[in-house]
Amino acid sequence: MRLTQGFIPTLKETPNEAQIASHRLMLRAGLVRQTSAGIYAWLPLGLRVLRNIERIVRQEQDAAGAQELLMPTIQPAELWRESGRYDDYGKEMLRIVDRHDRDMLYGPTNEEMISDIFRQSVHSYRNLPLNLYHIQWKFRDETRPRFGVMRGREFLMKDAYSFDIDRAAAVVSYRKMMLAYMRTFQRLGLKAIPMEADTGPIGGDLSHEFIILAPTGESQVFYDAAFEDIDYGARGAGGFSHDSAADLERFFHAMTSVYAATDEKHDLEKWAAVAPERRREGRGIEVGHIFNFGTKYTKAMNVTVANAEGKQVHPEMGSYGIGVSRLVGATIEASHDDAGIIWPDAVAPFRAAILNLKSGDAACDAVCERLYTALGDDALYDDRPDRAGVKFNDADLMGHPWQLVVGPRGVAAGKVELKRRASGEREELSPEDALSRVTG
Amino acid sequence: MRLTQGFIPTLKETPNEAQIASHRLMLRAGLVRQTSAGIYAWLPLGLRVLRNIERIVRQEQDAAGAQELLMPTIQPAELWRESGRYDDYGKEMLRIVDRHDRDMLYGPTNEEMISDIFRQSVHSYRNLPLNLYHIQWKFRDETRPRFGVMRGREFLMKDAYSFDIDRAAAVVSYRKMMLAYMRTFQRLGLKAIPMEADTGPIGGDLSHEFIILAPTGESQVFYDAAFEDIDYGARGAGGFSHDSAADLERFFHAMTSVYAATDEKHDLEKWAAVAPERRREGRGIEVGHIFNFGTKYTKAMNVTVANAEGKQVHPEMGSYGIGVSRLVGATIEASHDDAGIIWPDAVAPFRAAILNLKSGDAACDAVCERLYTALGDDALYDDRPDRAGVKFNDADLMGHPWQLVVGPRGVAAGKVELKRRASGEREELSPEDALSRVTG
Repeated sequence: MRLTQGFIPTLKETPNEAQIASHRLMLRAGLVRQTSAGIYAWLPLGLRVLRNIERIVRQEQDAAGAQELLMPTIQPAELWRESGRYDDYGKEMLRIVDRHDRDMLYGPTNEEMISDIFRQSVHSYRNLPLNLYHIQWKFRDETRPRFGVMRGREFLMKDAYSFDIDRAAAVVSYRKMMLAYMRTFQRLGLKAIPMEADTGPIGGDLSHEFIILAPTGESQVFYDAAFEDIDYGARGAGGFSHDSAADLERFFHAMTSVYAATDEKHDLEKWAAVAPERRREGRGIEVGHIFNFGTKYTKAMNVTVANAEGKQVHPEMGSYGIGVSRLVGATIEASHDDAGIIWPDAVAPFRAAILNLKSGDAACDAVCERLYTALGDDALYDDRPDRAGVKFNDADLMGHPWQLVVGPRGVAAGKVELKRRASGEREELSPEDALSRVTG
Repeated sequence: MRLTQGFIPTLKETPNEAQIASHRLMLRAGLVRQTSAGIYAWLPLGLRVLRNIERIVRQEQDAAGAQELLMPTIQPAELWRESGRYDDYGKEMLRIVDRHDRDMLYGPTNEEMISDIFRQSVHSYRNLPLNLYHIQWKFRDETRPRFGVMRGREFLMKDAYSFDIDRAAAVVSYRKMMLAYMRTFQRLGLKAIPMEADTGPIGGDLSHEFIILAPTGESQVFYDAAFEDIDYGARGAGGFSHDSAADLERFFHAMTSVYAATDEKHDLEKWAAVAPERRREGRGIEVGHIFNFGTKYTKAMNVTVANAEGKQVHPEMGSYGIGVSRLVGATIEASHDDAGIIWPDAVAPFRAAILNLKSGDAACDAVCERLYTALGDDALYDDRPDRAGVKFNDADLMGHPWQLVVGPRGVAAGKVELKRRASGEREELSPEDALSRVTG
């Protein structure tokens, strides 16, 4: 994209309403604009990040055997009356009355709807295990929306729902999702730690939340250094396979046998038992939450399948959420400095910015066009007639992993400057060498 | 996907509520399930089609220079009060009151919101022309939703909004979108015809709707055979380029100088002037609508930019909609037979079905696995233990462009049967030759 043509309205001033770094930087870098309290429009740069995160989440769900569908945003109240949650949910549920005076709602989650779809279609243990997920906009009418997309009212969530014939199978499904989540966060360039959690209004007796480490996180976290050494992505040698119950058990043990807790659940006695050199403290942000709640919904909504003996039984369910839009903010909280955002490579809106320090100069323009042609949609080409300082500042603010700086002196010597945003490291290279570093 | 593992709940019975072919077939083939009146969940097979259509729509919008962003589903009433449409819109608008008693609504369209985003960010003619689009769920509270996803309440729409400095530039933007639309429909495998239309509640004086031909379409259409001969996709020799005003004018002339009208606007006098051998009649479905409405919204909402003389002027706007979810139904109306759906290659959920006529037979299984490995995610492998008739029927119902039929007799002779769904043509080929036909 050429910056003179792209719709990337950066702000020079920091907006008053933004209290935290990610909110400030998302507004300033032109990623989002607020359209109502806690509701945002995603501008082109922000949408690219959102789609990158969504794609990685989807790939890891698919790899774990979950199947994607798409449920609507508007749900009938009847389903929630069946489960008993219509009255329980409180004012966070956005309730709607349609033109025929039917009670509807904007879905905050989908346990009831997926249970209804399941009971219409699946009647036998032979079709289990089954894990269905969607990535869809949700609404929670927060009384005090704040922190930008981190606690918005309309937000994008990936929610998966597993159905199993018995508790043992449900535990396998739960562990698969836990592994998929750790892989997802690792691919996103985030350090995540699963912590035992309360189940709240979803219900059930087995639940973990996933906290990513970020210096500005909302809660204090305490954890064993063990979490720092695991490569969740390695499939095969030393790693964990989704398809092996033994691997999943070994993985689950690794995740749950060492200490990790938020300040709310911090246990000083257990903490004292962790070797001092292995104790880690930090701040964290919740970005995912998984639940096994057994037959809570299948009983309430009379969902049954025939088991191997031909008997009708209520399947065991779990649900698994990742805050996709929240992750955009959380990633920035985990990775920024005073100058702006520092995108991890996997989610960056553009891999590189091309900074033309003398737009209109034939030699600089030619080198920039060459770089831009080679990188295509991976590059944001700053072809504005502005001075160098403006371009440096905006590139740092937007946080592209690489900056290709093209100025007349370098071009005369056959060189461009390559800057790595995360480290600040700079190198003079030929355009070709710079390109192969960026794409390599 | 293996059919024994995929969530594709086909129905043997035709559901009572479905009056038209696409609705019946979408329910029977397991593409969607209704969750409330006029609201549908997209099951894995249907979602794949929806995403294929969305991808082609997106590519052609991008190619025409439009930029993607994503506006939220829930909008504040204030914006619609500014334009005057809040009171005009009637009961089709789903009105919502949030917990703080603020009037909100589920967006049926986005002219107001995009104008608000624009006026916050763009202040100079230098940033024009600008065309911003999103692909987002909309809601229209139809009093009598019917015909499945063709006239649902919650539906997926691509809507683009152009901003130009004057009328001449706005006309170029309008023609670009018209060309992008004709290319989009051609790539989707549909015959589309643009027809002059009333502007209705959107406003303005220049408007076309895009009608695709389908034997079961809602309206009778009359058109000149000229529309059958044009290749909209050809860029270069003989084709039309987005970047040439002369090409766009030639294209617009080709689209609007020959006769085309729905029965509502049919003009017998003009029809009589069409040479009899060039007269075509058919039935059609509206799948897109484009509008130029000048300064209607920019005046009402006080949107201005500085022109080249430094004077504040109201930019000219247009809006451009494609019914993405409606296109799934419309494509089926245009392409089906008594046995089921016939997907055009570009939008098919799977390119091919692999039908194992003797699951469990070592030789048949081996050939099927080989085909499945080669085709990967492009194939739906029917590995169920069912009899051949069930598999033939389901493959015809689901409408995959190709069927690879693997039975013991053929396998013994080193052959599989390749069937083309559209023509019914069958051939005995080696597995390798069959594969190269499917992927070629």
